[in-house]
Amino acid sequence: MSDETYYGQASLGPYELLELGDWTLGSGQVIHDCKLAVSTHGILNDNRDNVVLVPTWYSGSSRHVADTYIGEGRALDPKRYFIVVANQIGGGLSTSPNNYPDRTEFPSTSISDDVRAQERALSDHFGIEKLAMIFGASMGGQQGFEWAVRYLMKVERLAVLAATPLATPYTKFLLKGMADTLTTQDSSVDAAVRRHAMWWTTFGWSPDFLRDEDYNALGLEGIDQFVEEFMVPYFAAMDPRVLLAMANKAIAADVCSFTGKPVDITLGGVTANTLVMSISEDRIFPPSEVAAHGKLIPSCTTRELKSRHGHLAIFGADPDFLLSLDAALDSLLSQDV
Amino acid sequence: MSDETYYGQASLGPYELLELGDWTLGSGQVIHDCKLAVSTHGILNDNRDNVVLVPTWYSGSSRHVADTYIGEGRALDPKRYFIVVANQIGGGLSTSPNNYPDRTEFPSTSISDDVRAQERALSDHFGIEKLAMIFGASMGGQQGFEWAVRYLMKVERLAVLAATPLATPYTKFLLKGMADTLTTQDSSVDAAVRRHAMWWTTFGWSPDFLRDEDYNALGLEGIDQFVEEFMVPYFAAMDPRVLLAMANKAIAADVCSFTGKPVDITLGGVTANTLVMSISEDRIFPPSEVAAHGKLIPSCTTRELKSRHGHLAIFGADPDFLLSLDAALDSLLSQDV
Repeated sequence: MSDETYYGQASLGPYELLELGDWTLGSGQVIHDCKLAVSTHGILNDNRDNVVLVPTWYSGSSRHVADTYIGEGRALDPKRYFIVVANQIGGGLSTSPNNYPDRTEFPSTSISDDVRAQERALSDHFGIEKLAMIFGASMGGQQGFEWAVRYLMKVERLAVLAATPLATPYTKFLLKGMADTLTTQDSSVDAAVRRHAMWWTTFGWSPDFLRDEDYNALGLEGIDQFVEEFMVPYFAAMDPRVLLAMANKAIAADVCSFTGKPVDITLGGVTANTLVMSISEDRIFPPSEVAAHGKLIPSCTTRELKSRHGHLAIFGADPDFLLSLDAALDSLLSQDV
Repeated sequence: MSDETYYGQASLGPYELLELGDWTLGSGQVIHDCKLAVSTHGILNDNRDNVVLVPTWYSGSSRHVADTYIGEGRALDPKRYFIVVANQIGGGLSTSPNNYPDRTEFPSTSISDDVRAQERALSDHFGIEKLAMIFGASMGGQQGFEWAVRYLMKVERLAVLAATPLATPYTKFLLKGMADTLTTQDSSVDAAVRRHAMWWTTFGWSPDFLRDEDYNALGLEGIDQFVEEFMVPYFAAMDPRVLLAMANKAIAADVCSFTGKPVDITLGGVTANTLVMSISEDRIFPPSEVAAHGKLIPSCTTRELKSRHGHLAIFGADPDFLLSLDAALDSLLSQDV
């Protein structure tokens, strides 16, 4: 592992490489001569009971974690704790696609592979059998949850920031879109229509709607059926050129083009009695964004309407939402102008 | 325009086509023999002052709008109002890429092109010079805002649902990702790295952070510099294979794989003293999702930490956020186990 790469000691060190030998993954595949890169901070006490483990997040490293979270007077204080920051297998510093001898064959790994490797390395190299705390953010939190489930008796405290113990439908689809940015995509129209439908599945509705399978009220059973029998066919009937024509309009939308003035001046000149409504779980036009613009209009009332349907509450499948919308419109229509 | 397509009368009618002749767009390009497809509901009164205009949303049609929002006893009551639902130019029913004679040359259009066409068509075909209300959802709302800015004296009331008067940085980047699903993408590594950096710009931070240019506190000036000098270089230094290895782990994360039991049973068995924290504006692991899982763990405290930095508050550039995080970790570490 060269020190000259982004992942080397010069850039992201210091770290040490704990040997795991040939490491068998949960899938049954083997990573040969597997090494776990860790940085340690502070001193392991005689009882070995002052250990804080911090696994890394997506794109992160032990260096990022240490710089941000560890320091004297901080919660993660190396004067009090022996803090081990464990870099992910596959994350660039530990054994990973960039430093594996046979670069074409680095196997897929899972959160549990990291957690098992950390447990083994802490035990073998430091004699650690108990963690005073695990703290993990984002993917580090996913590893923290796995520790607390898998090694019940070894985890005294678990602190998780900005993570869930499993990828929910929303987060799974969202992250799939992120991974897709890095890969060459099928250029067929069918594939494009499917990607587009998955985008709308992810962002059109709300995380709660997807997680709690609210779509079953539409007569569907399970996420696969929702995607295959509702979202894909809905958009597949349309012409992609038409969808693109509309999308590009929405992206370029700007009322200031007409006035040539800043948005506060432009909206400050609106004379219509105005009602600006947002939807509580809207991922596309978030309530904070809608309200921030509504308040720039002199005669404007802003309201946040509740719906677990997110942006696609506009489709009208949430009857309570439609009732609250109609009441708001009635109120505006009855205002004298 | 054939009636047999998805956009035809059989599927999305009835609608009528209002002739605009050769219609000059704001860009200077011309749509030849431009037609605006509208459906009307109710009767225009003698004073022509009972008009409600409803422009359509992305992928929507006058049929969708009428089915969802118009009806006797509803706010949009055809017994009281003359309701005109105007389909977008380019939206499939009005003159659009799918029905334009020279299909390769349908020009780009803008929100203001729709609004100008609607104003002209309402005046020429119905003698309408004043709107009792415009109601628009999503892209329909973008058109509503444009009406209220452009034709001040013609708009008595404006009701907008789930839209902003300009595409904010967050919504612009989000919708760009949506449009990208429909197009063939550059398969070079450089392009992939850039797409990936744009994804993180969109979802890593919060809409408020992007809109109010909070990143300028990091020493940057404007969104272009933020993207080019911070987000792209940050990820460009990394190995895409490493990023993909991590992304695929995050997507597959599932603590239930180990227990083989449902998530409530799996988390119900956790014995660690647990603290589960979310970040207020997190788009990747939303607070509602984090809290929903935290409450399944017996000895768990859940907290929502405030930060305008969204998910990437984990980077530590928000000092107040770090203070609240350290306080929460101190509190957990001081708990007896």
